[in-house]
Amino acid sequence: MGDKPTLYPVIMAGGSGTRFWPLSRQLFPKQLLKIIGDETLIQQTMRRVVKGAPPERVLISTNPAQAESIRVQLSEWKDALKDSFVLEPEGRNTAPAIALVALELVRRDPEAIMLVVPADHIVKGQRDFDAAVSLAASLALEGLLVTFGIKPIRAETGYGYIKPNTKTVLARQGKLKGYRVGRFVEKPNAMKAAQYLKAGDYYWNSGMFVWRAATILEEIRRHQPVLADGIDRIGRLINQGGAKAAIDEEYRLLPSISIDSGVMERSNKAAVVPVSFRWSDVGSWGSLDEVATKDRAGNIVGGRVVDIDSQRSVVYGDRRVVATIGLLDMVVVDTPDATLVCPKSRAQDVKKIVDILKQQGAPEHLEHLTVHRPWGSYTVLEEGPGYKVKRVTVHAGGRLSLQLHHKRSEHWVVIAGTARVTRGEEVFELHVGQSTAIPVETRHRLENFGQDTLHIIEVQNGPYLGEDDIVRFKDDYGRTAAS
Amino acid sequence: MGDKPTLYPVIMAGGSGTRFWPLSRQLFPKQLLKIIGDETLIQQTMRRVVKGAPPERVLISTNPAQAESIRVQLSEWKDALKDSFVLEPEGRNTAPAIALVALELVRRDPEAIMLVVPADHIVKGQRDFDAAVSLAASLALEGLLVTFGIKPIRAETGYGYIKPNTKTVLARQGKLKGYRVGRFVEKPNAMKAAQYLKAGDYYWNSGMFVWRAATILEEIRRHQPVLADGIDRIGRLINQGGAKAAIDEEYRLLPSISIDSGVMERSNKAAVVPVSFRWSDVGSWGSLDEVATKDRAGNIVGGRVVDIDSQRSVVYGDRRVVATIGLLDMVVVDTPDATLVCPKSRAQDVKKIVDILKQQGAPEHLEHLTVHRPWGSYTVLEEGPGYKVKRVTVHAGGRLSLQLHHKRSEHWVVIAGTARVTRGEEVFELHVGQSTAIPVETRHRLENFGQDTLHIIEVQNGPYLGEDDIVRFKDDYGRTAAS
Repeated sequence: MGDKPTLYPVIMAGGSGTRFWPLSRQLFPKQLLKIIGDETLIQQTMRRVVKGAPPERVLISTNPAQAESIRVQLSEWKDALKDSFVLEPEGRNTAPAIALVALELVRRDPEAIMLVVPADHIVKGQRDFDAAVSLAASLALEGLLVTFGIKPIRAETGYGYIKPNTKTVLARQGKLKGYRVGRFVEKPNAMKAAQYLKAGDYYWNSGMFVWRAATILEEIRRHQPVLADGIDRIGRLINQGGAKAAIDEEYRLLPSISIDSGVMERSNKAAVVPVSFRWSDVGSWGSLDEVATKDRAGNIVGGRVVDIDSQRSVVYGDRRVVATIGLLDMVVVDTPDATLVCPKSRAQDVKKIVDILKQQGAPEHLEHLTVHRPWGSYTVLEEGPGYKVKRVTVHAGGRLSLQLHHKRSEHWVVIAGTARVTRGEEVFELHVGQSTAIPVETRHRLENFGQDTLHIIEVQNGPYLGEDDIVRFKDDYGRTAAS
Repeated sequence: MGDKPTLYPVIMAGGSGTRFWPLSRQLFPKQLLKIIGDETLIQQTMRRVVKGAPPERVLISTNPAQAESIRVQLSEWKDALKDSFVLEPEGRNTAPAIALVALELVRRDPEAIMLVVPADHIVKGQRDFDAAVSLAASLALEGLLVTFGIKPIRAETGYGYIKPNTKTVLARQGKLKGYRVGRFVEKPNAMKAAQYLKAGDYYWNSGMFVWRAATILEEIRRHQPVLADGIDRIGRLINQGGAKAAIDEEYRLLPSISIDSGVMERSNKAAVVPVSFRWSDVGSWGSLDEVATKDRAGNIVGGRVVDIDSQRSVVYGDRRVVATIGLLDMVVVDTPDATLVCPKSRAQDVKKIVDILKQQGAPEHLEHLTVHRPWGSYTVLEEGPGYKVKRVTVHAGGRLSLQLHHKRSEHWVVIAGTARVTRGEEVFELHVGQSTAIPVETRHRLENFGQDTLHIIEVQNGPYLGEDDIVRFKDDYGRTAAS
């Protein structure tokens, strides 16, 4: 490897979707949304990191529940990402997740340099980003843990603040400089945050890091020995080809701790590169202000919105009409099954709404009415006692698994495209306006062998209509769990 | 008839549904809504007037587009109201509508006393209402045009103000007194309204009237001769058994004028009975405050609302989740196809939203996704290019017309109850989980002969899916127009 570091971008994609509810859901977090631009945040993140490293070197840290959605969104790099997913069995905060990836990386390349980037941040300025990564990588090669420092623009209390030790410039590239971290303060109170903002020599910790995989593992051992021991045990299990259940069990026992407070704040190897690119972690509906395009009245508007006289408000709709009059600094987000209305200043409390819905067992915290699958998607149009109506969309060439249900019958009516249907021993085609009925306990398969997208309306009948009433016989996507 | 007047309640039910959008629609105006209580406003109005007169004497003034919905809601009095509908061919404000009813009433009973009540007002205090009607009727018998005066509670600029001439008490019954109208000021400016409120001897004109049908026709002739001439021509056409089209054409030529400014303000026969019952015309979402039950924070809440810290706000949802945080004096109304968010102080401007939607040709101003029919209702679950999905609900004993469509095929899947289906020459039953397909150009009928409500999912396919693609052969409800 020599002096030229080999960079492995690591996309941290395990977050849950509480703060952008109702557009985000537990199973459809912020990274999967098009917050700004034509691509989702994780697509933008992938596109950003593959400018500096081949896609084969990218690793994705996520959990089993989200992996499938992420694979669908990153299908442009499908082949390159075949073996790139590192799955946390359970969310244990960033330190265990990063340790698990680092473990995998040193196995692949003992000299590996990790570029850790959250999947759901917005960065504007590719050239500045690349330059910062390059400078940080040279520091990482010297055994430092490097974070990118963002110039604060408000007295935010939710971030860590870093004061560089500017006496010594560790490295320099054009205007960019790298320093040791002088002070590191995680989530200060409002007064302190205001002081740091005013002082002008504090930076926000961006949550993006560059380090040698071996270095972060050493520093985890030094500052979080319990975590390091657990990771060692997991490493041994993996090397011995241990059972997945055993590895998962070890992972669940790891302490839940963030890499920032668990390692970065404690390590004497911490360094910072103050950067010039625009950055936002879009932490709430209120923070959209910093990154989204506004109309002349300062509104950020999407969907079928009819507005009179609103100012500085965020109004997101979809296919339904959202009518707003005279709003000031408000957030209105309308989705097919849930609507949020609050002042921008209260947008942080959306988490509390999600908690309430979770306590109520309400499905609206968990997922959308539209659920994406490798073969396409389905949308629940209505659900009631004993029935469910879905629109099912199958990509050209896609097919669902060969399956059966114990508790429900299904009716399919083709509304666009052509379906190839397997029902028991029969295989036949269905065209627009044609339909078929699939009785309970009958093997069936829906397939789109045509060039156009297939759309069907599915009416389910039965005493139990959960997605987990499914027995799969064959599946193109290697799935064994629900649909 | 002698001294005992014969009272004919006239329910004015021709209003359009702009001010309570999105809960009200042009084809589903406020009177059809359960604004407060378990019954809709028109049901409450009907129940109120039949305390003082047999239901057979009630007349309903409305237009053809709303008549069916009103008949459905007043089906409790179905037989009594068989010949009670007086249909305006087109909305021409209250004076022509009242003239048309008066014309019909003098034909039935030359001595008829009319009690004119809007279908969408809220009145609390049946006994006080009955007493006021009784005193007003005695004045009407003496040839006066009597309105009920409401004690103002705010400097409202949208109403007429009446100052009674209290020198002479025309009639008295307990605490109730009737006076000549001293002054009548329609919709004063804010300063004047404040003066009248402060003065304490002005009353709001409630828009409810009592008079002899013959008297109002005389006064229309005196003050609105052009309208009177038109009504005369319509009367002659009716007596000669003239064609409906000719009558409609005459009606459309009538001047559009309100009975308040056209007659009451000008007539020297105007009288007023100041009343003590609680009254509201619930003119906007903001005015709900006066009549609805509030929680401890002053909120009026309905539906699946999850709220944190809101105060003095109106939040109406339905089956979807509406999450609100920290709202103050706001209105949030969520319906299956449209959502409204505005401060209470801007609730009057909902009309402007409806105007914009109308200009856009957006269906959301016109009707709801759920449409009521004499046999039940249907709800559009989704509509897209070439297809429409509906849930169709048929009351026990109800049946749709025997019909066919030129442009669409239909699939029916029974999700609750049992259907009797006519398809071409066949008649058969469909139970839960069973389905059938109705090809284009095939006569068909859907019928619920069971005891339980029938629910089916209907998937329509075709190049044109308008409700007007229907040919009816037989119909239990005497309809010849669309479904």
